[in-house]
Amino acid sequence: MKPLRIQLQPEDNVAIVVNEGGLPTGTVFDDGLTLVEHVPEAHKVALVDLPKGSPVTRYGVTIGTTNADVPRGAWVHEGLMEEPAAPSLQDAPFGGAPVPDMSPLEGITFQGYRNADGTVGTRNILAISTTVQCVSATVDYAVKRIKQDLLPKYPNVDDVIAITHNYGCGIAFYAPGSEIPIRTLRNLALNPNLGGAPMVVSLGCEKMQPSSMLPASTLPVLQQAPYVVTLQDEEHHGFMEIVSAILEMADKRLEELNRRTRVTCPASDLVVGMQCGGSDAFSGVTANPAVGYASDLLVRAGATVMFSEVTEVRDGIHMLTARAANDDVARALIREMQWYDDYLAHGGMDRSANPTPGNKAGGLNNIVEKAMGSIAKSGRSQIHGVLGPGERASTKGLLFAATPASDFVCGTLQLAAGMNMHVFTTGRGTPYGLAMAPVIKLSTRSPLARRWHDLIDIDAGTIATGEETIAQVGERIFQMILDTASGKHTTWADHYGLHNEFALFNPAPIT
Amino acid sequence: MKPLRIQLQPEDNVAIVVNEGGLPTGTVFDDGLTLVEHVPEAHKVALVDLPKGSPVTRYGVTIGTTNADVPRGAWVHEGLMEEPAAPSLQDAPFGGAPVPDMSPLEGITFQGYRNADGTVGTRNILAISTTVQCVSATVDYAVKRIKQDLLPKYPNVDDVIAITHNYGCGIAFYAPGSEIPIRTLRNLALNPNLGGAPMVVSLGCEKMQPSSMLPASTLPVLQQAPYVVTLQDEEHHGFMEIVSAILEMADKRLEELNRRTRVTCPASDLVVGMQCGGSDAFSGVTANPAVGYASDLLVRAGATVMFSEVTEVRDGIHMLTARAANDDVARALIREMQWYDDYLAHGGMDRSANPTPGNKAGGLNNIVEKAMGSIAKSGRSQIHGVLGPGERASTKGLLFAATPASDFVCGTLQLAAGMNMHVFTTGRGTPYGLAMAPVIKLSTRSPLARRWHDLIDIDAGTIATGEETIAQVGERIFQMILDTASGKHTTWADHYGLHNEFALFNPAPIT
Ligand SMILES: [Ca+2]
Ligand SMILES: [Ca+2]
Ligand SMILES: [Ca+2]
Ligand SMILES: [Ca+2]
Ligand SMILES: [Ca+2]
Repeated sequence: MKPLRIQLQPEDNVAIVVNEGGLPTGTVFDDGLTLVEHVPEAHKVALVDLPKGSPVTRYGVTIGTTNADVPRGAWVHEGLMEEPAAPSLQDAPFGGAPVPDMSPLEGITFQGYRNADGTVGTRNILAISTTVQCVSATVDYAVKRIKQDLLPKYPNVDDVIAITHNYGCGIAFYAPGSEIPIRTLRNLALNPNLGGAPMVVSLGCEKMQPSSMLPASTLPVLQQAPYVVTLQDEEHHGFMEIVSAILEMADKRLEELNRRTRVTCPASDLVVGMQCGGSDAFSGVTANPAVGYASDLLVRAGATVMFSEVTEVRDGIHMLTARAANDDVARALIREMQWYDDYLAHGGMDRSANPTPGNKAGGLNNIVEKAMGSIAKSGRSQIHGVLGPGERASTKGLLFAATPASDFVCGTLQLAAGMNMHVFTTGRGTPYGLAMAPVIKLSTRSPLARRWHDLIDIDAGTIATGEETIAQVGERIFQMILDTASGKHTTWADHYGLHNEFALFNPAPIT
Repeated sequence: MKPLRIQLQPEDNVAIVVNEGGLPTGTVFDDGLTLVEHVPEAHKVALVDLPKGSPVTRYGVTIGTTNADVPRGAWVHEGLMEEPAAPSLQDAPFGGAPVPDMSPLEGITFQGYRNADGTVGTRNILAISTTVQCVSATVDYAVKRIKQDLLPKYPNVDDVIAITHNYGCGIAFYAPGSEIPIRTLRNLALNPNLGGAPMVVSLGCEKMQPSSMLPASTLPVLQQAPYVVTLQDEEHHGFMEIVSAILEMADKRLEELNRRTRVTCPASDLVVGMQCGGSDAFSGVTANPAVGYASDLLVRAGATVMFSEVTEVRDGIHMLTARAANDDVARALIREMQWYDDYLAHGGMDRSANPTPGNKAGGLNNIVEKAMGSIAKSGRSQIHGVLGPGERASTKGLLFAATPASDFVCGTLQLAAGMNMHVFTTGRGTPYGLAMAPVIKLSTRSPLARRWHDLIDIDAGTIATGEETIAQVGERIFQMILDTASGKHTTWADHYGLHNEFALFNPAPIT
């Protein structure tokens, strides 16, 4: 393969090397640019001389300042760049970004399970919520039995899962921040893929009681039918009676869920969460912009699309507030960024704690560069709403769901927000999967997609090699979302049953 | 059953009602005490008139002050008592408690698995450590395969477990407090029940690399043999090759572990962790004092015994420092209490966040009363050492392992400290279990033991009814520890495979 590099914006003074294994000293590009040293794959090469103190420009923005003279053709690595300060939240503009042409896409549909509350499931899953970690092993035991003994009787039900976690007792129930794990657990139980038929297993003496986790007012079914098995109830004599009580309630729920069938639903019933993890320098060039393209298609089709990961977008706050549909949205964006700034400062940290050794080895030098790549997942649409961590989406269009960037914490919070389809991009590679919603995984480069042929669902590396455009990969993502949502396509994570545990975000202390 | 009550110390001015269901108004005790109202089971009755402002005395200490006139024979409930302030850490005495006669118990042995580092396992388990949550689902998949395909070939190996967790990436690796989860994961891998044959599954790009979680200097085997499977390694083509690589390394470890046999070991090789959860007013009267008696027997036999749960013993700090074997131990006790006071204050909370609705319904009105009951688990021995959360024990005798009271967080930290046997008392009832060490569960009352006949291993409720003495139940606990450690007795949690997930204590922020 001939030497290839990607420059994103005309004003950029660095480009990234595309070739597998990087390029050696002396490599000459078509336009005469000559490498003065080895530049690793996915890392940056200087397109012009960058004297000490020059801004390093990528994505059309300054991602750092050189701390030494860097000649044209040199490797612009982490040690040569000073990180810019975080942009001030006070100075972020309210609106003003050009509003792209987003003509509606009419008539796009998928086959889903319609719920009584108007939401639509892409899967038909029985979930057993738990109020406290004490019951986890018991519920795991019961779920195994349910899958073995009951599930085969109900062919329309896809799966049985336990919403287990480390919360519920031994925690400060009224501490500042404790509303986050509590509403997360509540809203997880209301996820559209669970068919509005929740059941809860409680211990009895825990701090978080079923009535505070999932009040009967939350769903009509909770007022009509008993929905809680309490282990400490006097009627249960021994473990086997406890397990039988769980199986009995599960059997009733399975019967209800089994009666449902897929119906044709407009694409506006999709709630798609976008995330990246194990990112590299190609994330912001291939996979994330392709996801952004798909995101715009979804928004045009009327769907709800979420992007997240506060610490990864914090450095692009001015770009986000400029895209806010109104001042309330801009204010809410700033509020969530400020909350996280304070949260990190409280823990003695700042946003620079985000990038990983893998990010850096992958050519992502700092949080600014990572942010520009991460924001690309949100496409170009206006931002129509903002959710605090664990809140449930109630509006359509593009939303910012404020979550940590930590992969499973973000995924869990997007599920609580009502996500029924998930798209996840990865540069370094991660076998990410969730039990509650299908996950479509994209690789940023083709070598990863080839190596992990049975883990990566879509290869966006074809954008770097020029085999496909961003639009072409974006259209493929959009189509796979519809097919997967309809149950016609199975993702690799679901094929192997690779389903990671839920990971709650609890900013409060434990006791 | 005739009316029964328990008064713990001669100076106590309240006693607790023992009878199931409580006792009605007008009940007359043998000595003429007459109830002026219904007093629920496990709740307190006033033995004398307590005018407003009187100290309420139980365990010989003031657990509160009356805020109204309370007549003899009345129910002394939460609403009638003001909680005392936490005792000052500055004023805690260094030593001075009478040193009880603790003559050595010679010749007590059990059958254990001796490890190269001198520690002894009570089980022979293969554990797969993980550096990051991204690999959890993959390792769960592999463990299932290992149990199905490999474990049957190795009859001397008891189990295969995955040490999965929500740490490793998306976290602030250098934040204050992050040393706690990191050393916890390291020391979990070194638990005596894992035979010194750790293996690690890593993703590749995570923040916590195998070399920082489990440096090769930690165990000799880590210098000799490869012990890490890295998912992102270029040699793995596809998920099935990843799984094969894990199985291959597991097979080698299983072969080593399978060669081991139990040998006679002195009781001094036991490392026993004591804990309580779902406590009630009987915890401090029946089960915990019996555990304390067993603890003293173990200490006399040369074993290591740990008690924990900072927020539950904080209010008895003066009693603990008085029992410190030397000034360093007293200082370390104060240091750990201070750390936790600060941690809770930082989160906007204080120690009063500990008691649960279940505690209160069970007659435990506040943290002072709970503390006196919790400390009873430590017996009467001198305190010989203090461990910070996640630190590994290196001394014999009674140790205070500073941990949150949260059941699985405490259990996980005690496992990291090297615990090879666990004793857990419960009043309200919890189906607690751990994968890494056998758990003996005690009930504080007989009705729970009868109802949960296949979850509770020892009924300490016989102490309340007068059928057994504290010493008799203590001896039974001691004997069951030896039998279980030797593999001759199976606990109910192990019988059903009720093994809760590990729960890390991470006081640092996530990103
Ligand atoms: Ca990300
Ligand atoms: Ca992420
Ligand atoms: Ca699990
Ligand atoms: Ca306790
Ligand atoms: Ca506890």
